[in-house]
Amino acid sequence: MAAEFRGIIAYPITPFSRTDGSVDTGKLTALIDRLVDAGCHVIAPLGSTGECAYLDDTEWHTAAETALRAVAGRVPTIIGVSDLTTDTAVRRAVFAQQAGADAVMVLPVSYWKLAEREIARHFRRIAESIDIPIMAYNNPATSGIDMSPEFLVELVAQIGNVTMIKESSGDIQRMHRIVELSGDRIPFFNGSNPLALEAFLAGATGWCTATPCLAPQPCLELYDMVRVGDYAAARRIFYELLPLLRFILTGGLPSTVKAGLALDGMDVGDPRPPLLPLPPDALETLRMLLSHRTGALVG
Amino acid sequence: MAAEFRGIIAYPITPFSRTDGSVDTGKLTALIDRLVDAGCHVIAPLGSTGECAYLDDTEWHTAAETALRAVAGRVPTIIGVSDLTTDTAVRRAVFAQQAGADAVMVLPVSYWKLAEREIARHFRRIAESIDIPIMAYNNPATSGIDMSPEFLVELVAQIGNVTMIKESSGDIQRMHRIVELSGDRIPFFNGSNPLALEAFLAGATGWCTATPCLAPQPCLELYDMVRVGDYAAARRIFYELLPLLRFILTGGLPSTVKAGLALDGMDVGDPRPPLLPLPPDALETLRMLLSHRTGALVG
Amino acid sequence: MAAEFRGIIAYPITPFSRTDGSVDTGKLTALIDRLVDAGCHVIAPLGSTGECAYLDDTEWHTAAETALRAVAGRVPTIIGVSDLTTDTAVRRAVFAQQAGADAVMVLPVSYWKLAEREIARHFRRIAESIDIPIMAYNNPATSGIDMSPEFLVELVAQIGNVTMIKESSGDIQRMHRIVELSGDRIPFFNGSNPLALEAFLAGATGWCTATPCLAPQPCLELYDMVRVGDYAAARRIFYELLPLLRFILTGGLPSTVKAGLALDGMDVGDPRPPLLPLPPDALETLRMLLSHRTGALVG
Amino acid sequence: MAAEFRGIIAYPITPFSRTDGSVDTGKLTALIDRLVDAGCHVIAPLGSTGECAYLDDTEWHTAAETALRAVAGRVPTIIGVSDLTTDTAVRRAVFAQQAGADAVMVLPVSYWKLAEREIARHFRRIAESIDIPIMAYNNPATSGIDMSPEFLVELVAQIGNVTMIKESSGDIQRMHRIVELSGDRIPFFNGSNPLALEAFLAGATGWCTATPCLAPQPCLELYDMVRVGDYAAARRIFYELLPLLRFILTGGLPSTVKAGLALDGMDVGDPRPPLLPLPPDALETLRMLLSHRTGALVG
Repeated sequence: MAAEFRGIIAYPITPFSRTDGSVDTGKLTALIDRLVDAGCHVIAPLGSTGECAYLDDTEWHTAAETALRAVAGRVPTIIGVSDLTTDTAVRRAVFAQQAGADAVMVLPVSYWKLAEREIARHFRRIAESIDIPIMAYNNPATSGIDMSPEFLVELVAQIGNVTMIKESSGDIQRMHRIVELSGDRIPFFNGSNPLALEAFLAGATGWCTATPCLAPQPCLELYDMVRVGDYAAARRIFYELLPLLRFILTGGLPSTVKAGLALDGMDVGDPRPPLLPLPPDALETLRMLLSHRTGALVG
Repeated sequence: MAAEFRGIIAYPITPFSRTDGSVDTGKLTALIDRLVDAGCHVIAPLGSTGECAYLDDTEWHTAAETALRAVAGRVPTIIGVSDLTTDTAVRRAVFAQQAGADAVMVLPVSYWKLAEREIARHFRRIAESIDIPIMAYNNPATSGIDMSPEFLVELVAQIGNVTMIKESSGDIQRMHRIVELSGDRIPFFNGSNPLALEAFLAGATGWCTATPCLAPQPCLELYDMVRVGDYAAARRIFYELLPLLRFILTGGLPSTVKAGLALDGMDVGDPRPPLLPLPPDALETLRMLLSHRTGALVG
Repeated sequence: MAAEFRGIIAYPITPFSRTDGSVDTGKLTALIDRLVDAGCHVIAPLGSTGECAYLDDTEWHTAAETALRAVAGRVPTIIGVSDLTTDTAVRRAVFAQQAGADAVMVLPVSYWKLAEREIARHFRRIAESIDIPIMAYNNPATSGIDMSPEFLVELVAQIGNVTMIKESSGDIQRMHRIVELSGDRIPFFNGSNPLALEAFLAGATGWCTATPCLAPQPCLELYDMVRVGDYAAARRIFYELLPLLRFILTGGLPSTVKAGLALDGMDVGDPRPPLLPLPPDALETLRMLLSHRTGALVG
Repeated sequence: MAAEFRGIIAYPITPFSRTDGSVDTGKLTALIDRLVDAGCHVIAPLGSTGECAYLDDTEWHTAAETALRAVAGRVPTIIGVSDLTTDTAVRRAVFAQQAGADAVMVLPVSYWKLAEREIARHFRRIAESIDIPIMAYNNPATSGIDMSPEFLVELVAQIGNVTMIKESSGDIQRMHRIVELSGDRIPFFNGSNPLALEAFLAGATGWCTATPCLAPQPCLELYDMVRVGDYAAARRIFYELLPLLRFILTGGLPSTVKAGLALDGMDVGDPRPPLLPLPPDALETLRMLLSHRTGALVG
């Protein structure tokens, strides 16, 4: 049976050992267990949140294998395989499929601004090397590349196993456009936390977010309320969660999520330089946001 | 005697073998010879033009060593040591110094938006690991990080061996600001081809450009005219060169420069995917631009 | 009893005579009748759609009086009193109150970029001269001034009769911010057609739109579905309406709405130069959009 | 003999009486006398600096006639005839010609975003109604309309008496483009103070600026140095002047220039609301900038 991608797609950070900076496979396993146990619908390791851009090949392989073993098929897994070069992205996609991933997520990271024909070729090369589905991921703020709804819908039409879109530009009109251009037929996912509420109304199939690392229940409840059509309840949950969502986004996902996990008793190490741990005042704000919101979590 | 950084700072591309895609050291040597022989004042390998973002460590080492051996001290050499992680940037800076570089150029490449304290720490870590001067390089379009003139001038003030600024944002008012904030004392270099003329008037010490790979003479003459204060002549040269400058920038430096070198009889291979070679119509435009401008070169 | 401002706030265009270009009071009366008869909840003459920026004082007075007489208290009326100078805005606000308006809408139109203290003084001067409520209107795209949620909420807190906010920036996060900053207590209205659906979920009290001039029923039904919490139905209506909403916005409100009314048999003249009537191909697109959507209207 | 438009084009503010707020014709005459006596090459009343957007027809007529009488043909006069409607712009252009203006300047002020065909018609209607030359003026920051170099050059090609371009976008590449597209044949003027130096090198025929109201000599000297090709001297003058240029621009031209004239003993009243006079701290900064720079003026 094909894996089902919908609901809360949870993005774990990648823990690093405080001793030698290596990928901490025990902590990664524990974090993923927690996310699956909480009820997250899909696990998405090695996304932006997972500092995939800062891992060398060996570390990336370790993290991918560890994550897949931890999920152990309880829910679908989407592995992020983004890289600056097409060759490395292809290698990682092949590795992910062989290791058992249900899908891969591809963010065309730019150094040079890429022309659309270059982005399309990048996707085609990856797609040709694997059989599992690909989620095309647009996030101009981190990747430096902005793919229009027109381009994304065309990508899905042209390349067989590119079947899903993740939109993180934060512009809800892009989602409207994807619905219109595809006749409401391409599953798209919202990757912008501040749009968590309205994206579902626009038609999003799921919410891609690192927030469940710190506060899984409100995310899951928001989605449940949407599923049963109780948008008033979803709205209440969203506005309660919004200060945390905004804080996580503004402070940088790896730094804020790692700090929040430490507050919750799970020391997952620091993010990699040039990233820095959260400064003390921000840490205090985060503590208040988490205790206020989810007493049990930090308490 | 300290190396002098001024004038035309030439950025070679990194040639790749058509056989196996490896760094073509023979071609890199030949290209650098050509640039030095033409009279370029400084050679700057492994910049953006040199596809440094797409090289693994071994390739990067090979390219750096080959370039330094090719220059052989005839003119100063600035090696680009940019990388996504601080650790790799440090390693490359140390390697560059040991291999004989006169300076390194550091572009803080972002994946996550970096806070100013993160960028400063990145520079400090690199600076502490070497003795040679550092050129702080601002290029928001490729790196995703925009360092203000205020931040750059402070960086130079705070970190002993950060001594030069390269500004590629294309905003001449940034250069005005650097002059004002530093009391006209920090050497800054223009990295935006369309500002080649006016940046010198604003006070730039040099022009960082890949253009000499294809047309060294007009670049050198423009600088000579500026040096003797003949701005009318500099203006004539600039406007003649402008269509080529704009074409190179718009088409992407590695793709256009590699295509232009092939037109000139030096096959340096293709840029690395996701970059693509120039499409046929653009190639035709480039041929016309080069033959029109520099008959001898393509002739 | 205080007027209630909620639901569909309909913005009539200002008809001009084809003979002498004067304000066509008969047509304005007929159009307003149609909007009230259709069930629109509030009428808002002399907004941007009403070409208020292009009317001299006499014309503006005529249009305001005609509109108020046409509405005749059947529903509340909000008159737009925007002008480049504070003095004229004050004069128009006073006139509107004396003529019986229930509220005025104020867009601080810029020529020079205004500082916040200048915008605040503009609002205060108008507020001091009248007793009726003021809707503070943010529309950076037409007015050249962008008021932040923080500034708008402070304006409502500081000035007694500034009681409502109209947000037309098209950024749903601004609405989230207004809700947060005001503790969900300031009524805000969405003025961006592409956000018609999601703004209600974010908490908007009403939708300010010229669309009812051409297609009142779907707008009213969308609002009714929102009121009863049937967001699935609201979504269906929204996506059916979206091509028309986008067309109206892209083509310019006065030009497209006047063209649409003419297609529907009500010739309201051309917009004032520099505005031009819709070109033939756009007119054809509009005809198809209207006939497809609302057969009865155009058929 | 045709008027010659080149050099320092000085923009007077419009003085208002402190008693009744009317246009102070005596002060306007005195200010223009001062500008002509100082050696400014062209006088340009009723530009943005002249608060043309805030004047009613009668006031505008008074200001235009007063200005032309004050210049009295000693140097050429360009009158700004911008307005939101084409009809008023045409009326003002006709009035300006009849009153003896040598040229008019047209900024297509937007309320609604105008399509290029609407802007072109606006210019054509004005051009057909007069015989004197028109300077097409691009200033997206104040007008809300951005005309590309391509559009501007086409406008000059298509409409006989549109013969000059004023570029105030602050982007020097627009000037490069005008030079290229027109084969260096259309006279263009720089209206962005921070580009005062480099625009001349790019090829500008003149500098449109309100700065001479406060400091005419450095502006004139900068131009003289450019004329004789002494760019090193021009550079020195520019950087000395730059803090004042930036202050004037940032603080808003009418407010800062009126404050500066008052410091110099010429009370020209306040700018019109919504504009406010300079706050005390900014006034103090201005006093220092002026005394430092031009002792004689304020001293």
